[in-house]
Amino acid sequence: MPNQRVLTGITTSGTPHLGNYVGAIKPAIEASRRSDTDAYLFLADYHALIKCEDPEQVARSSKEIAAAWLALGLDPAGSHFYRQSDIPEVAELCWILCCNTAKGLMNRAHAYKAAVQANDASNDDPDFGIKMGLFSYPILMAADILIFNAERVPVGRDQIQHVEMARDIAQRFNHHYEPLFTLPEAVVDDNVAVLQGLDGRKMSKSYNNTIPLFEGEKKLQKSINKIKTNLLEPGEPKDPDDSIVFQIWSAFADNEQRESMRQDFADGIAWGEAKKLLFKRINEELAPARERYQYLMDHPGELEDIMVAGAERVRPQASELLRQVRDAIGLRAYA
Amino acid sequence: MPNQRVLTGITTSGTPHLGNYVGAIKPAIEASRRSDTDAYLFLADYHALIKCEDPEQVARSSKEIAAAWLALGLDPAGSHFYRQSDIPEVAELCWILCCNTAKGLMNRAHAYKAAVQANDASNDDPDFGIKMGLFSYPILMAADILIFNAERVPVGRDQIQHVEMARDIAQRFNHHYEPLFTLPEAVVDDNVAVLQGLDGRKMSKSYNNTIPLFEGEKKLQKSINKIKTNLLEPGEPKDPDDSIVFQIWSAFADNEQRESMRQDFADGIAWGEAKKLLFKRINEELAPARERYQYLMDHPGELEDIMVAGAERVRPQASELLRQVRDAIGLRAYA
Repeated sequence: MPNQRVLTGITTSGTPHLGNYVGAIKPAIEASRRSDTDAYLFLADYHALIKCEDPEQVARSSKEIAAAWLALGLDPAGSHFYRQSDIPEVAELCWILCCNTAKGLMNRAHAYKAAVQANDASNDDPDFGIKMGLFSYPILMAADILIFNAERVPVGRDQIQHVEMARDIAQRFNHHYEPLFTLPEAVVDDNVAVLQGLDGRKMSKSYNNTIPLFEGEKKLQKSINKIKTNLLEPGEPKDPDDSIVFQIWSAFADNEQRESMRQDFADGIAWGEAKKLLFKRINEELAPARERYQYLMDHPGELEDIMVAGAERVRPQASELLRQVRDAIGLRAYA
Repeated sequence: MPNQRVLTGITTSGTPHLGNYVGAIKPAIEASRRSDTDAYLFLADYHALIKCEDPEQVARSSKEIAAAWLALGLDPAGSHFYRQSDIPEVAELCWILCCNTAKGLMNRAHAYKAAVQANDASNDDPDFGIKMGLFSYPILMAADILIFNAERVPVGRDQIQHVEMARDIAQRFNHHYEPLFTLPEAVVDDNVAVLQGLDGRKMSKSYNNTIPLFEGEKKLQKSINKIKTNLLEPGEPKDPDDSIVFQIWSAFADNEQRESMRQDFADGIAWGEAKKLLFKRINEELAPARERYQYLMDHPGELEDIMVAGAERVRPQASELLRQVRDAIGLRAYA
């Protein structure tokens, strides 16, 4: 049986934090190593333009995120790792699919509807502040998926609908023209780890409660010291299941370490001590990656070479499929 | 003073008829010969996809229209003549501009609003049958214009708004990022000749009243014989200003020939005779082009070579501008 083609888009906005690492980067990198899959992972920098109009941030974010994934173990030789905007075939296919997609489908997209609802709530024009990039973004996402005929697309629940739209768009094309597109399936992993942030809410940039990934030991230690705890003194038994420190510890520990910490909590470990252990454990895991990250950030030429090689590796597939698509719709050489 | 850059899009749907020739092709070709302009003329085959989902027709139409313009005297060496879909930079810029364009702007586009009105009139869902290609087509048109920094865009009245939208989009980009785009101006020629069709209405494919351009002498003669006339007998004076035959004659005649025919009408020329003269005049003008057209249609390799050379000639400009655009928005190499 041929390998399953699994495609993951990585939005290049913001700087990755510990929550991204545990919830997204680590599992995706692990999945990319499976011998029964062909992993396609791309930096969705065309998508980033929808969210961010600051060119410096767009540029920085793409670079940081490329370096982070590579530093954390993504193997560019064993997977397909590329920048979306290095594959012009994606934009071409996007337009072609636009001509094949009902506007009504986009009217029903969650992301767009949420933006309209927010405008309604504040008594603004329904389309206030909404760009065409946001409105038509499910078509770009369909192009991302279909240009490589990806079979499986791991997504969060909020993205299932967009994968289904890609499926609808592919189906319509296959039916009307020629069956060129694989119908993609959304894969939702409900067991994905959601890391708590410093304040106990989900760790997220928008809550300003994140622990940085690569900002050096001191900052890491400082962040961990800020994790909210209760007022129990050293020696008093503590409830691990009610502790952010323990929750984060669990994301990094193996079973044995987890049980050992549970015992420490029962034995009344001091918060300072528990945080020290947590810092040590995370730092242990991140230190080698942090070094590689810093190396890549300091050697952007090498980083660039990796991305260029990644694009060169996948482009022949994209251009061959686009060639077939163009032929099917009638954009043909005259002879 | 540098030459003015004038850009004309040629929609590749349908087969060109005598009305297209008189109203659009002939004046555009004449304008392309002016020494003070750089003429960019492109086959808008990405746009054609919006109107036509029949691949054979898309392919045939593009070829016929390319052959027609060349046969009628467009000089591919003295102008820039290319297929839109041979310039992938157009599709890339289109997505980038999507991220920069308010959805509200597209809501107000005439072509879209007309489609919604038609749906309202038939009590359908407002977006019934409307594709995203139609909805976002002003952005593609903006990309067509801006990628070559065209200064003037000759259009019919119904297209003025779309050129203004391209201008708005360019202005917003220039203001927010860097001033990379020339602001285009719509040029409307109100003196453009509108040819009457066989039945006296505007000659148009949708009225089924056209006279073919290149379908051979016999068909041309047959069509001309079908032109509606009144019942006045030979010898009875006829009113040229109330005659389709005279109107079409005028489009092909010089002043002297026009006055001479006016006299013939006053002298009571028979309709059969007038039509014979009209056929002779049109055939005289079209015969050499018809031969070149047939030659090109029979030698599609030569036609293809011309289009490929045209694309090669303009692509460096497009890719240089796109490079600057990408840099301005933050899609940059890491080193």
